[in-house]
Amino acid sequence: MPKHERKKTGLAPGSLVFTGKKHVSEPNVILLQFNENDVLEFEAKDKLVPLKEGSYSIWYDIRGLHNIDLIRQFGDQYDIHPLALEDILNTQQRPKIDEYDNGIFITAQALELKDPKEDLDVEQIAIFFGKDFLLSFQEKEDDNFASVRTRLLAPQARIRRRTPDYLAYALLDSVVDQYYPVLDQVEEEIDDLESIILSDPDNTTKNRIHQLKRKLLTLRKAVVPLREAVSRFSRLDHSMVKEDTLVFLRDLYDHTVQVMDTIDTYRDLLNGLYDLYLSEISYRMNIIMKVLTIISTIFIPLSFLAGIYGMNFKNIPEYNIKYGYFYLWGIMIAIFLASLYFFRKKKWI
Amino acid sequence: MPKHERKKTGLAPGSLVFTGKKHVSEPNVILLQFNENDVLEFEAKDKLVPLKEGSYSIWYDIRGLHNIDLIRQFGDQYDIHPLALEDILNTQQRPKIDEYDNGIFITAQALELKDPKEDLDVEQIAIFFGKDFLLSFQEKEDDNFASVRTRLLAPQARIRRRTPDYLAYALLDSVVDQYYPVLDQVEEEIDDLESIILSDPDNTTKNRIHQLKRKLLTLRKAVVPLREAVSRFSRLDHSMVKEDTLVFLRDLYDHTVQVMDTIDTYRDLLNGLYDLYLSEISYRMNIIMKVLTIISTIFIPLSFLAGIYGMNFKNIPEYNIKYGYFYLWGIMIAIFLASLYFFRKKKWI
Amino acid sequence: MPKHERKKTGLAPGSLVFTGKKHVSEPNVILLQFNENDVLEFEAKDKLVPLKEGSYSIWYDIRGLHNIDLIRQFGDQYDIHPLALEDILNTQQRPKIDEYDNGIFITAQALELKDPKEDLDVEQIAIFFGKDFLLSFQEKEDDNFASVRTRLLAPQARIRRRTPDYLAYALLDSVVDQYYPVLDQVEEEIDDLESIILSDPDNTTKNRIHQLKRKLLTLRKAVVPLREAVSRFSRLDHSMVKEDTLVFLRDLYDHTVQVMDTIDTYRDLLNGLYDLYLSEISYRMNIIMKVLTIISTIFIPLSFLAGIYGMNFKNIPEYNIKYGYFYLWGIMIAIFLASLYFFRKKKWI
Amino acid sequence: MPKHERKKTGLAPGSLVFTGKKHVSEPNVILLQFNENDVLEFEAKDKLVPLKEGSYSIWYDIRGLHNIDLIRQFGDQYDIHPLALEDILNTQQRPKIDEYDNGIFITAQALELKDPKEDLDVEQIAIFFGKDFLLSFQEKEDDNFASVRTRLLAPQARIRRRTPDYLAYALLDSVVDQYYPVLDQVEEEIDDLESIILSDPDNTTKNRIHQLKRKLLTLRKAVVPLREAVSRFSRLDHSMVKEDTLVFLRDLYDHTVQVMDTIDTYRDLLNGLYDLYLSEISYRMNIIMKVLTIISTIFIPLSFLAGIYGMNFKNIPEYNIKYGYFYLWGIMIAIFLASLYFFRKKKWI
Amino acid sequence: MPKHERKKTGLAPGSLVFTGKKHVSEPNVILLQFNENDVLEFEAKDKLVPLKEGSYSIWYDIRGLHNIDLIRQFGDQYDIHPLALEDILNTQQRPKIDEYDNGIFITAQALELKDPKEDLDVEQIAIFFGKDFLLSFQEKEDDNFASVRTRLLAPQARIRRRTPDYLAYALLDSVVDQYYPVLDQVEEEIDDLESIILSDPDNTTKNRIHQLKRKLLTLRKAVVPLREAVSRFSRLDHSMVKEDTLVFLRDLYDHTVQVMDTIDTYRDLLNGLYDLYLSEISYRMNIIMKVLTIISTIFIPLSFLAGIYGMNFKNIPEYNIKYGYFYLWGIMIAIFLASLYFFRKKKWI
Repeated sequence: MPKHERKKTGLAPGSLVFTGKKHVSEPNVILLQFNENDVLEFEAKDKLVPLKEGSYSIWYDIRGLHNIDLIRQFGDQYDIHPLALEDILNTQQRPKIDEYDNGIFITAQALELKDPKEDLDVEQIAIFFGKDFLLSFQEKEDDNFASVRTRLLAPQARIRRRTPDYLAYALLDSVVDQYYPVLDQVEEEIDDLESIILSDPDNTTKNRIHQLKRKLLTLRKAVVPLREAVSRFSRLDHSMVKEDTLVFLRDLYDHTVQVMDTIDTYRDLLNGLYDLYLSEISYRMNIIMKVLTIISTIFIPLSFLAGIYGMNFKNIPEYNIKYGYFYLWGIMIAIFLASLYFFRKKKWI
Repeated sequence: MPKHERKKTGLAPGSLVFTGKKHVSEPNVILLQFNENDVLEFEAKDKLVPLKEGSYSIWYDIRGLHNIDLIRQFGDQYDIHPLALEDILNTQQRPKIDEYDNGIFITAQALELKDPKEDLDVEQIAIFFGKDFLLSFQEKEDDNFASVRTRLLAPQARIRRRTPDYLAYALLDSVVDQYYPVLDQVEEEIDDLESIILSDPDNTTKNRIHQLKRKLLTLRKAVVPLREAVSRFSRLDHSMVKEDTLVFLRDLYDHTVQVMDTIDTYRDLLNGLYDLYLSEISYRMNIIMKVLTIISTIFIPLSFLAGIYGMNFKNIPEYNIKYGYFYLWGIMIAIFLASLYFFRKKKWI
Repeated sequence: MPKHERKKTGLAPGSLVFTGKKHVSEPNVILLQFNENDVLEFEAKDKLVPLKEGSYSIWYDIRGLHNIDLIRQFGDQYDIHPLALEDILNTQQRPKIDEYDNGIFITAQALELKDPKEDLDVEQIAIFFGKDFLLSFQEKEDDNFASVRTRLLAPQARIRRRTPDYLAYALLDSVVDQYYPVLDQVEEEIDDLESIILSDPDNTTKNRIHQLKRKLLTLRKAVVPLREAVSRFSRLDHSMVKEDTLVFLRDLYDHTVQVMDTIDTYRDLLNGLYDLYLSEISYRMNIIMKVLTIISTIFIPLSFLAGIYGMNFKNIPEYNIKYGYFYLWGIMIAIFLASLYFFRKKKWI
Repeated sequence: MPKHERKKTGLAPGSLVFTGKKHVSEPNVILLQFNENDVLEFEAKDKLVPLKEGSYSIWYDIRGLHNIDLIRQFGDQYDIHPLALEDILNTQQRPKIDEYDNGIFITAQALELKDPKEDLDVEQIAIFFGKDFLLSFQEKEDDNFASVRTRLLAPQARIRRRTPDYLAYALLDSVVDQYYPVLDQVEEEIDDLESIILSDPDNTTKNRIHQLKRKLLTLRKAVVPLREAVSRFSRLDHSMVKEDTLVFLRDLYDHTVQVMDTIDTYRDLLNGLYDLYLSEISYRMNIIMKVLTIISTIFIPLSFLAGIYGMNFKNIPEYNIKYGYFYLWGIMIAIFLASLYFFRKKKWI
Repeated sequence: MPKHERKKTGLAPGSLVFTGKKHVSEPNVILLQFNENDVLEFEAKDKLVPLKEGSYSIWYDIRGLHNIDLIRQFGDQYDIHPLALEDILNTQQRPKIDEYDNGIFITAQALELKDPKEDLDVEQIAIFFGKDFLLSFQEKEDDNFASVRTRLLAPQARIRRRTPDYLAYALLDSVVDQYYPVLDQVEEEIDDLESIILSDPDNTTKNRIHQLKRKLLTLRKAVVPLREAVSRFSRLDHSMVKEDTLVFLRDLYDHTVQVMDTIDTYRDLLNGLYDLYLSEISYRMNIIMKVLTIISTIFIPLSFLAGIYGMNFKNIPEYNIKYGYFYLWGIMIAIFLASLYFFRKKKWI
C-alpha cells in the first residue's frame, strides 16, 4: 500500500521533493549512445553531456532518485516541464502519459513478487523522450530494463535503427513482461488455496485469501491506469511517435488488456474461493452440530431413565420386578435403535 | 487456467517462441485450392507453393504449432507481420483482430468440454487472410473446421464462389457454433445441481458449483474479446472485406452476443444456486439445532428432578409419601406436555 | 431456460432448420388484406398470393413454424434474406432488428405466465415488413396479436390508413403490453413472499425466491435486447419507416424502458427478500440457541448439585444436617433466580 | 409499488383510460392568468376559455384525473398529442420529457412521506406547455405547486415577467424541493437504525431496514428518469425554451444529481447497516454459544464424577476412604479452576 | 452526513438563505492585492473596494457566511449570478463548476479528519473569479488556503505574475492536497483493523469497520463530483482560462483521479476486511462448538453408564461382580480413548 505521508503539501506545484524511500546510496547514471552502426556505454554519475559528438540517439538511465540536484540538472538540460520533474520524484504517481512540445513523459509501475508470502514490490518507472534522446528513471539499483540493454548492445541490433519512441515502447514492454511471472505466482497461490480449502482449510486459509486480494488490488491499481496510458500512447498524434511504432504500441496495449482480463478473472476466482471457504466452514459446523445432536439426543433420554431408577422413593414398584433391570436395558436399546433409525432417515448418519 | 510460465520474457517483440503444449508429433498442413468450378485438396507437410496454377483461392490449414521454422516459412511467403506471427505461437493470446495492409489477422479460442467433470479444453485458432489466400492455425490435430471443409468439397458449393473474407467468417462461425454444446452441458449441470440442492445437497455440491463457476469464467474470457473482435470485423472498412460478407459478420456478432447473454444468465443462475445452497445449509442447521434443543429442553429438567430424588439426605419428606414416585411421574409428564405445547406454539414441531 | 440442443451445428449459415418444439399440428396462415375502406380476412393455409388485386396492404400471420417448405415459400415470395429466414426458425433467437433493402426484420419474445408456479412461457415472434406487406410468425396457435386484429377489423379503423411500419409497431406494442400482467404476477408473488418471510418462512420459501429469480432472469433476457431493438427501430432512417410512426416507436421505447426499470426494481426487491429471509433464519437460530442455552445453563449446575448429594461416600457430613435437604433447595432456588437475573440483564428473556 | 393491473391492454395506443386511483370526488381546475402587471385567479371547474382577453400567460392546474372528458377537452383545445394525453392518465408513467411541435410535455413524480412507517406517497405530475400557456395535471387535491402559486400572486413578482418554460422549471423545482424532506426522514431513520443496531437490535430491526430499502428503490425509480428528463430539458434546442431559462434548468439538473448521489449514499449506508446487523447477530450467537459451552464444559465432567460416586457397586474402595468426599470436592474444584483458566486463556471469559 | 433540514423550500430560485452552521461569530474578509512587483494585504471586514488603484489582481477571501448582506454586496459588486450566490450559501452544495459570461464559479469540499474516531469535517469552499479578481468563500475561520497565501506574500513570488485562473487552480490544489493526510489516516485505520481482526477482534471491531465505510462514503461524495468539475475546468474553452494554466489543471485532474482510485481501493480493502471479520467470527464459532461437542460427546455416554450403575433395582448382577467397579472404569477409559481417536481422525483436536 502506498503511503502518502511524505507527500509534500503546501508547496507550489512543480516543487521538487523526493517522496519515496532512498533505495540506493548514490544515484547511478548509465549512458548509452547509439546509432545503426555503433553503440557506446558509460557509467556517467554526474555527466550530462554525451561523450561523443555525432548523430547518436542518447539513452540516460538514472537509478536512484534522492539526489534532487541531479534530477534538476537533467530537467534543465532537456527542458523537462516542472510538473513532469515533480512526477518523477513523487513515486506514488498514477501511471500516465503527458504530451509536451519537446517530448513525451510516461510513468509506469514495475512490479515484482520476490516472496509469494510478502507484499508486492512496487517501483515507479518514469520515461521522458524527445527527438533523439530518452531519459529513464528507476527508483532502485535493480535494472528493469536489462533485456532491452542487452538487445541494444548486440551487434547489428535492429533496435538501434529505431527512434526513441520505439525505445520507450521497448522499455514499457519489458515492464509489462514482468507482470506475467507475478500473475503466475498469483495463479499458483490460487490453485494451492483451492486444493487446501477442498481438503483441509484452517484458520490461516482466510488470511491467505485476504493477502492475495490485497495483491490483486495493488496489481489492478498499477495496470488500470497503465492500460489507459498505453491506449493513449498508441493513438497519439505527435511528431515524435512514428507510424510504424504504433503497431507495436497496439500490441503492447493488447498485452495490458490481457493482464487486466487475467487480474479480473483471478479476482472472480478469489471471490469464488472465499465463498467456497465460507460454505466449507458452514458445512463443517453442520457436521459438528450433527455429532453433538446425535449423541445428546440418544443419551439424554437414556440418562433420564437411568436417573429415574436411581431415585430413593420408598415405593417404586419396578424395583421389585425380578428382571426389571434387564427389561429396562431392553427399553433403552429399543430407544437407542429408534434414534438411530430416525437419524438414518434424516440422512444425518 | 492458462499458464504464462513459458511466456518469453526479455526477448525482442516479434521473436518467435512457441508457448503452448506440443499436441501433435508433427505439424500437419492441409491445402485446399478452390474456385467456383474446381476444388483440390492435398496434405502438404512442408510445401508452401500451391500445386496448381490458375485463379484459385488457397486455404492452408496448419495443425500443430511447435515447428517454428514452418510457421516462419509461411510468415515469409505471405508476408505476415512479426507481431502476428508471434501471436500465432503465443497460444494464450486474447482473441482479437488486427488489420495489416496485406491482410487481416484474427485469433479466437475453440472450446470443447469432453468430460463435464473436467476443465474446458481451450485451443487457440489463428486466421490470416489476404486477397486470395487464407491461412488457419490450429494447435491440435482435431479439426475445428471439418464442417466448413465438407461444405467446400461438396459439388457446386456456393461457398467456393466467395472470397477469403467469407471463408474467415465461416471458420469463425464454426468456432462459435462449438460454444453451443458447451453451453448446453453447462445448463444441464446447472439443472442437475438445482435439483440436487433442493433434494439432498452434500459436501461435493459446493465444489461442483465452484467448478462450474470456473468454467464460466473461462468461457467468458474467451467470448468477451471475441465479441469485440467480431464487432470490429463486422464494421471493418478494408478492401479485403466485401460488402455482402458484412451481413454475415453481423449475424455472427449477434451469435456472440447471444452466447455472452447466455453466459451471464448462467452466472446469475449459478450465484442464485450458491445462495440457495447456503440457505439450505442454514436451514438444515436450524433443524439440527431444533432437534437438539427440543430433546435437551425436555429432558434436562426431568433429569434434574430424577437427580433430586436420587439424593441421600436423611430427611427427605417426599420419600415417605406413599405414592410419591407416581406423583413425581405425574409432574414429569405434565412438564413434558407443557414443553411440547411450548414447542408447538413456537412452530418448532 | 432455452435449450440449444437442436441448434444446427456444421450447417452453412442460412440453412433452414426448425429448432423449436412443434406446438401446432399444422401451420395456420391467416391473411388480412386492408386499405382505408376495406378489409378482407382469409385462412389461407398454403396460399401466398393475396385474394384480391388492388392497393391493399397485406398482413400474413403464420402460426406454427415446423413446415419449413411453407416458410421457404414466403421467403422466396417476399425475398427474405436467408439469415432472416434462419432466424425465424431458430426460435431461441435474441430479440433484434435487421435492416434489409427490401424490408425490416424484427424478432421479439412474447411472454406468458399461465401458472405463477410454473416457468414463463416464451414464444418467439418474428416480423418482416416491406412497403406494402407484413409477415408475422408465431410459434403457437394462440394469437398474440388478437387485439391488433380486432382493431383492424373494426369499421373505419384508423389503423387501416397507416403503413406496415405502423402495423409492425402495433404488433410489438401488443407483445410488450403482455409483459405487464406478467410483471403484476411477479409483484404479487414478491408481496406474498414478503409477508410469508415476515410471518412464517419455511423450507419452500427459499425455493420460491429462487424460482422467481429465474423468472426475472428470463424476463430480463427477453427485454434487454428488445429495448435495444426498439431503440434502433425508433431512430431508424429507412424509407419504409414513416416520420409519424417514430413518435409511436419512441413511446414503445419508453414502455420497454419502464418494463426494464420494473424488472430491475423487482430484482433488487428480491435480493432484499433473500437477505430478509437469511436474517430471519439467523434470528430464529438465535432464539433456538437461547432456549437451549437458558435451559442448559440453569439446570446443568443444579443437576450437578443433585448428583453430588446422590453420592454414596460414607462420610458426607451434609447428610446429617437436619434440614440439609431444604437448605439445598434454598441454594438451588437461589442459583435458579440468579440465572434468571443474569439472562434478564442480557435481555435474553 | 406501482400496480399495473389497470393498465389497459389491447387498446389502440393513445386510447384514454385512467389507470390510477380516484383521489378526489370532482376534478378541480384552477386558472391563473398573468402578465407583468396583472394576475387573475379563478376556480374554473369546466371552463377552458380564459376569462380575460389580452396578452396574458395562462396556467391551468387540473387536480384529479378521473374525468376523462375534461382531459380530452383540454387535449382538443391545446392540441395535445394523443400519446401525451394517454400518459397524463396512465399515472404509473416513467418521468420523461417529450417534444412536440406545439409544446413540451413533461411528467414527474411528486413524493411525500406522511408517516415514516408507511410507504412513500407517489403522485404523478404532468406538465404541458406551449408559447403562452401551461397545463399542469395533479392526481390529488393537495397542491404540489403552492409555493409557485404564492410567488406568482405576490405583487411585482419577477416570475410573472417570464415565459411558460420558466414556469415549467419552477413547478419541477418545487417537485424536486419536496424530495429533500423525504431524504431527511430517510436519513433520520438510518441514524435511528444505526444506533438501535449498535445497542439493542431485535426482530423488527431487519424489517425496518427492508422497508427503508423499498423506499429508496421507489425514490430511485422516480429520480433516475427525472434526472435524465431534466438533463434533456436543460439541453433542449426548442423555440419555446428561452436561453436564460437554461441556466436555471442546469441548476435544477444539479439538484437532481445531488438527490441521486444522496440516494446512492443512503443505499450504501443501508447495505452497511444490514452487514452490521448480520454481524451483530453473529456476534450475539457467539456469546450465546460461549455461555452454553462454558457451563457445559465445566459441569458435564463434574456431573460425571458425581455420577461415578453415586454408583452402587459393592466394591468401590473410594467409599471407604475417610475424607474421600472432601478429596473429591478438591478434585472437582481443581477441574473447575483449570476450566476457568482454559477459557480465560482462550479469551472467552 | 449532510442534513437538508435547513434547505429552503418554497422560495424562488436564487433566494439567499444560509443553510449551514454559523461557525464564526463575525465574517472575516481578507483582501490581497497583488501584481508582479507588489503585494498588499488587508483585513477588510466590510470594505469591498480595493485600497489601492492600479493594475492589481484582487483576491477577497471571505470566511464565515452567515452575514447574507455582505455576500449580497459582493454579489452586486462583482455581478455574481443569483444562482451562484445561492450556491455559496447553500453549504451542502455538490462540488461543481459553472461558467458565466463574467466569470467562473467553482465549489469544492475541504475535508479534515481532526480525530480519527470522529466523523469527517466537511467545509464548503466556493470560488468565483473573473478577469482580474477572485473571491473565495470559506465557512470557517480556519484558513484552507494558508499555503497559497504564504507563496503569494513571498518576495518575487512567481504566482503573482499569473492570472486569477491560476490562483483558482492553486486554491483547488491546496484543497485536494488536504485529502492526502485524510487518506493516510484512513489507511492507518485499515491496517490497524486488519491486525486486530487477525489477532483478537471484539464487538467494537465491526463498528469501526462501519464507521470507516461511512467516512469513505463521505470522501467519495466529495471527490467524485470534484473530479468531474476539475475535468471540465481543464477542458474549458473560456477567455478567462489561459492556455498555460490548463497543463496545471490536467495535473490537478490526475491528482483527483488518484485520490478516487485510492478511495476505491480502500473500499475494496474494507469490504475484504469485513469478509475477513465475518469468517473469523464463523471460525471462532466453529471452535466453540467443537469444544462443546467434544466435551459432550465424551462425557454424556460416560455419565449414562454411571447413571445405570446408580440405579436401585434389586437384581443388578454387575453389582456382585467383585471388580465390577474397576471393569467399568476400564470400559469408560476405553470409550474415552475411542472418542479421542475419533476426534483426532476428524482433525477436531
